[in-house]
Amino acid sequence: MIKYKTYPWLLISVLLIFSCKEQVTENPDPLPSWNEGSAKQSIINFVNEVTDENNANFVKPVDRIATFDNDGTLWSEKPFYFQLFFAIDRVKELSSEHPEWKTTQPFKAVLENDMKTLFSFGEHGLVELVMATHAGMTTEEFEQIVKDWITTAKHPRFKRPFTDLVYQPMLELLSYLRKNEFKTFIVSGGGIEFMRPWVNEVYGIPAEQVIGSVGKVKFEMRDEKPVLVKLPAIDFIDDKDGKPVGIHRFIGKRPIAAFGNSDGDLQMLQWTEIRNGKRLMVYIHHTDAEREWAYDRKSSVGRLNKGLDEANEKGWTVVDMKNDWNVIYPFELKDK
Amino acid sequence: MIKYKTYPWLLISVLLIFSCKEQVTENPDPLPSWNEGSAKQSIINFVNEVTDENNANFVKPVDRIATFDNDGTLWSEKPFYFQLFFAIDRVKELSSEHPEWKTTQPFKAVLENDMKTLFSFGEHGLVELVMATHAGMTTEEFEQIVKDWITTAKHPRFKRPFTDLVYQPMLELLSYLRKNEFKTFIVSGGGIEFMRPWVNEVYGIPAEQVIGSVGKVKFEMRDEKPVLVKLPAIDFIDDKDGKPVGIHRFIGKRPIAAFGNSDGDLQMLQWTEIRNGKRLMVYIHHTDAEREWAYDRKSSVGRLNKGLDEANEKGWTVVDMKNDWNVIYPFELKDK
Repeated sequence: MIKYKTYPWLLISVLLIFSCKEQVTENPDPLPSWNEGSAKQSIINFVNEVTDENNANFVKPVDRIATFDNDGTLWSEKPFYFQLFFAIDRVKELSSEHPEWKTTQPFKAVLENDMKTLFSFGEHGLVELVMATHAGMTTEEFEQIVKDWITTAKHPRFKRPFTDLVYQPMLELLSYLRKNEFKTFIVSGGGIEFMRPWVNEVYGIPAEQVIGSVGKVKFEMRDEKPVLVKLPAIDFIDDKDGKPVGIHRFIGKRPIAAFGNSDGDLQMLQWTEIRNGKRLMVYIHHTDAEREWAYDRKSSVGRLNKGLDEANEKGWTVVDMKNDWNVIYPFELKDK
Repeated sequence: MIKYKTYPWLLISVLLIFSCKEQVTENPDPLPSWNEGSAKQSIINFVNEVTDENNANFVKPVDRIATFDNDGTLWSEKPFYFQLFFAIDRVKELSSEHPEWKTTQPFKAVLENDMKTLFSFGEHGLVELVMATHAGMTTEEFEQIVKDWITTAKHPRFKRPFTDLVYQPMLELLSYLRKNEFKTFIVSGGGIEFMRPWVNEVYGIPAEQVIGSVGKVKFEMRDEKPVLVKLPAIDFIDDKDGKPVGIHRFIGKRPIAAFGNSDGDLQMLQWTEIRNGKRLMVYIHHTDAEREWAYDRKSSVGRLNKGLDEANEKGWTVVDMKNDWNVIYPFELKDK
């Protein structure tokens, strides 16, 4: 029926249809590292509902805010918070200029490699350590130090850069949400200036979508050029009660989805839950002692106790890392 | 030459080409309310350079950050800051519950309609007024009050909603920058919670891209639901030295373009200027007494004195509202 002269136009039409369509072609499984199960299904159902204009739970793209804790949610946090490795390296490097650290905690514990005492100060102690070891330099000098460290330092168990220890299933999840016009934010107890230099490259999250603990800075003119000098004072701790405060201050909207792994994330999940309409609260439960670490109610780092009870009580999604994830770290894919 | 059977396929091809192309078709003049001249040209040249991959000044989209002051830069600020009208209305509404305001400044000045005394407290006084009149309520209650006020209150000169007094040329500029993959931020001395409820609708800037002065809030559980309660305390003033601090805290990157109209924006422009590579610093100069207001070096609201000297000295772009803009407010277009 189709004449040969028609053929080129038919071909062009088909090619144009495909070139137009290409942008919206989707991977059949957006979360290949997630095993089939209730956790994966709850995420996919949520995304399908809030992005479907004909669904009663439809949410406009401008309100599709998803917040992620960092330590233990996007990357590992054992044997202790990775920022603490950074702080320890800084303390050791600067110790000759600070003889008083030999007798002052938490510096003393660092210099004596007394990790047990150091842990006892918790995340607040870590933040204090970082703030104190970096006072007096400009924000840009600090940024450079972080960039140098993150590309050279290695994790003691895996002998790999710390940024290799991000979770492949969470990278897929971040990407899946962004393809569905979500804005993905980090809401971490860690230092905001420690995360910003590398999160865009590693997670695809730009610096301006990172909320974290904040140190005070001061505007100064040096050689007629403005600089911001880091002061040895904490302005804001973005942990526990601080997470909803940080979300309100930096984003000004309630998230529709929130992801955490510890009791430090509980208020963020509660804050997300009371939003009207559909919302998703997810806890990552560390259950894989072999591929990663197994810990929850009694861990000094990343304790998940109250949060686990509340999640079970309220029917929040709890991800069982051992059973729900067929891959933990991206490097496992290359090794396969 | 083309057989009639070919015709439908040709038509389909042409239609598909147009439907594909439609998304990228551009207005020949992206800034129609700007008269031809050096100000308009400096903006267009800047955008062309930083978005051209073959230009030495190319900037990746992720780093295309543009910051805008609000009062006097995106909307008018005369006879005084619009947030002050809001605060005055709040003080009057709440005065029966606060007999002490009759003898306490700056409340006394408000209740006595003594604008001269009120002005003497400057933008800091305004922020203090707003913070104080809204303590004790939740952030969501406050948001609703702002939404109600912004849709009902009218400007005394124009007898129109305050949001009608945004600048048409700046709306075009915001849109032009976003089409060129810039992220547009507000960096204002005004209250962050006063701006966020309406800026997305008016400027197309989402709440999370608004930086402003911040009041302290406290996380509380009420009837087993978390709320944030506004405290009568200022956390951060986003003005003068505070603007680079706010930019660093909220964005974590140096802008490549910054727009202001007063000495309160000078440090933001200085902070932008010392970035390596191409950058654009712009002052809006209020020169049109007829269509808007004319003021600069001696105005108590929106004073532009040091900034004007520095702009002239350094060759920053100074927009002459009277001569560079053929339209001031969007409603003039409808009236034409």
